[in-house]
Amino acid sequence: MKVVKFGGSSLASGAQLEKVFHIVTADPSRKAVVVSAPGKRFSNDTKVTDLLIACADHYLQKGKAPELAEAVIERYASIARELNLDSSIIERIRDDLFTLLNGDKRNPEKYLDAVKASGEDNNAKLIAAYFRHQGVEAEYVSPKEAGLFVTNEPGSAQVLPESYDNLHRLRNREGLIIFPGFFGYSKEGDVLTFSRSGSDITGSILANGLKADLYENFTDVDAVYSVNPSIVQDPKEINELTYREMRELSYAGFSVFHDEALIPAFRAGIPVQIKNTNNPDAKGTRVVSRRDHTNGPVIGIASDTGFCSIYISKYLMNREIGFGRKALQILEDEGLTYEHVPSGIDDITIILRHNQMDAALEQRLVTRLKRELHADEVTVRYHLALIMVVGEAMRHNVGTTARASKALSEADVNIEMINQGSSEVSMMFGVMEEQEKRAVQALYEEFFARVLLS
Amino acid sequence: MKVVKFGGSSLASGAQLEKVFHIVTADPSRKAVVVSAPGKRFSNDTKVTDLLIACADHYLQKGKAPELAEAVIERYASIARELNLDSSIIERIRDDLFTLLNGDKRNPEKYLDAVKASGEDNNAKLIAAYFRHQGVEAEYVSPKEAGLFVTNEPGSAQVLPESYDNLHRLRNREGLIIFPGFFGYSKEGDVLTFSRSGSDITGSILANGLKADLYENFTDVDAVYSVNPSIVQDPKEINELTYREMRELSYAGFSVFHDEALIPAFRAGIPVQIKNTNNPDAKGTRVVSRRDHTNGPVIGIASDTGFCSIYISKYLMNREIGFGRKALQILEDEGLTYEHVPSGIDDITIILRHNQMDAALEQRLVTRLKRELHADEVTVRYHLALIMVVGEAMRHNVGTTARASKALSEADVNIEMINQGSSEVSMMFGVMEEQEKRAVQALYEEFFARVLLS
Repeated sequence: MKVVKFGGSSLASGAQLEKVFHIVTADPSRKAVVVSAPGKRFSNDTKVTDLLIACADHYLQKGKAPELAEAVIERYASIARELNLDSSIIERIRDDLFTLLNGDKRNPEKYLDAVKASGEDNNAKLIAAYFRHQGVEAEYVSPKEAGLFVTNEPGSAQVLPESYDNLHRLRNREGLIIFPGFFGYSKEGDVLTFSRSGSDITGSILANGLKADLYENFTDVDAVYSVNPSIVQDPKEINELTYREMRELSYAGFSVFHDEALIPAFRAGIPVQIKNTNNPDAKGTRVVSRRDHTNGPVIGIASDTGFCSIYISKYLMNREIGFGRKALQILEDEGLTYEHVPSGIDDITIILRHNQMDAALEQRLVTRLKRELHADEVTVRYHLALIMVVGEAMRHNVGTTARASKALSEADVNIEMINQGSSEVSMMFGVMEEQEKRAVQALYEEFFARVLLS
Repeated sequence: MKVVKFGGSSLASGAQLEKVFHIVTADPSRKAVVVSAPGKRFSNDTKVTDLLIACADHYLQKGKAPELAEAVIERYASIARELNLDSSIIERIRDDLFTLLNGDKRNPEKYLDAVKASGEDNNAKLIAAYFRHQGVEAEYVSPKEAGLFVTNEPGSAQVLPESYDNLHRLRNREGLIIFPGFFGYSKEGDVLTFSRSGSDITGSILANGLKADLYENFTDVDAVYSVNPSIVQDPKEINELTYREMRELSYAGFSVFHDEALIPAFRAGIPVQIKNTNNPDAKGTRVVSRRDHTNGPVIGIASDTGFCSIYISKYLMNREIGFGRKALQILEDEGLTYEHVPSGIDDITIILRHNQMDAALEQRLVTRLKRELHADEVTVRYHLALIMVVGEAMRHNVGTTARASKALSEADVNIEMINQGSSEVSMMFGVMEEQEKRAVQALYEEFFARVLLS
């Protein structure tokens, strides 16, 4: 049994919905369909979710926004016309939306969450109507009815554990389940949305609850690439990777998937298949718990800029119990989160994201580190990029480090720091930002281009 | 102006003292001479310090130890006979030693410190007498008279800052200063010794106090080697290295110098010259604050075994503020000191010295890390070796990492972890202990053997 999720661009028009219909009905094991709100039909188009946010803002400020509300309804109506659905479904959507827009506004955050969530909710109703119109047994299921309970945090709700058991009961339903993504209900009955990529989260939760064999995530790319296509042209696609590899790649700029969305599926050990709605025959990318390592040690290369480093040195630091812990405590006091802490004998370097720092904070931090730790030197450097070379097979492979560092050296890239723990799922290189692209290209050339030639 | 320090093997016999005399008088800028107690004359010989410790133990337990006391005096007497000194100096040493041995024993630790220190103290008196006998103006100076004050910690005294100003006044003395190493005086007038290599510490303190241009440390090796001679035959000597390089090398098994001894000279920016009493024409090794980088990026390779690693992984660890700090806090609570903390996205590896761990502590630690940090996995691995590749020039040198990791890979050494902070004075590789020697040999071959060929 499979849970299938479609993103906004897969549901933006009647033509897209026809593709979705064919995909879903082509495989009888596809039982539950999680849907986003209609996305962009063309590059200048506006997503329904963005229209709804604008609409909610206007309602909150002025009490009405007739044109925006009609623009939302028209998106559904145009899809319904394309698909020859009768007007009753649009009347239902219109009634539901205006009831909501004219409803309780005492808590603006919750009002916004409820309006945003209607994008998915109404789309699920529309899609269920379309499937039935096509003669398929399909039913809209509300997260409330299904018992998808979440924490009371608007915009970043977390699923409550009991939801999984509630959702498991959906297995007994006949026919297809059409389920809106992006939101759940508090125990008090309020609508609350997940964080970004919320429909991916819903799909993952539903896959866990239903104990699905597979979670299929349909989007608009053929696969996850081994490297950012804006840095390397036509990069190799990844057929299969592990959750951990996905996570390490996501960390540094891979954005196919919001990695938090994977957790519920990961916890239940359910593989995730990423596929393209517009090219469903493409193999796609599968995210699994374990994989065989047959295609070289490296699965992907990711990079991200915007890091800075705080270098702290003190003669005989190594003899001091608690030095590193105290340094990290000072960062924590100042509300800073750090990424890595490579160290020498008498020095540590703390790598963190630049956007947390400002001149005043830097000054305070340097002063505190010098005064409280009696450091000899504290230096802050900006414009660092981190490059992650990722692959579970690296741990069985003598020489991956040598290949990576030789490739960087031959491309005249200076390695500012290296960090490789004993897990060896990834290797981190710090380089200056202006060398990032050259570094990624050189690593890609070493680990992928040469593989293709063999 | 130079401070010169001679180790025990340089002062073990009259013949050795003649070498010392020629070395000191060959250069009129050698102003102050710091001396150890007489060391071994041959491999089965006993050091005077060890005789004194046995002597003090007997006196504490039985109130006397005539043979041991005479054995100590005989060491000085045989030197005096070799050098044709008259017996008055030995009478003085005998009187001083018995007064001390029969003295106050209420605080055994302080009694032991005073008896141990007499080895250096009496040797300084003897050497001053010998220099005068040779017609050179030379005087024994007591640390008490000179104002070398230390903390009240038997066996591990620390110099008090005011000592430097007191010692500075010795500059005004005429003639050579013969100064006993290894100890100072508390403000209450008690003798207290430094930790091991205490004469090196005294030399370094005196160099700082006198604001010497150079601190010459005479020992029994021609130079510091670039790698452990028990791993690589006839390794290259190091002519010049920085304090930081010395320190990074000392950390992992280089034992020419107890690195703490360097601190007072380091703080005053005074270079340290290591030379061989038995081969004073050999160039030796100079430890400096800064050096030119002309001989390749790497100055030395050190390695040490007996490390273990604690691998901690937790999905989405990276999102948790304070995870690393909390893990280090747990280690600190358990009294453990760690060396390095390489990390991935969702894992950290804590490297520490194995000898701190036992089965019960490991069990407790794993339980605490799992329970308090909710870690998915905690794994302890033993038998790790750390290899330090050290050189200040590495920071200017693209490709050092590539060369090192390629050499290791070609020697079929698997790199378990890498740690290179932004200081880039050193690069750390973790390997399994059974691969340590092969790894060091491969690195030596890469960075030194090939340099010699060019």
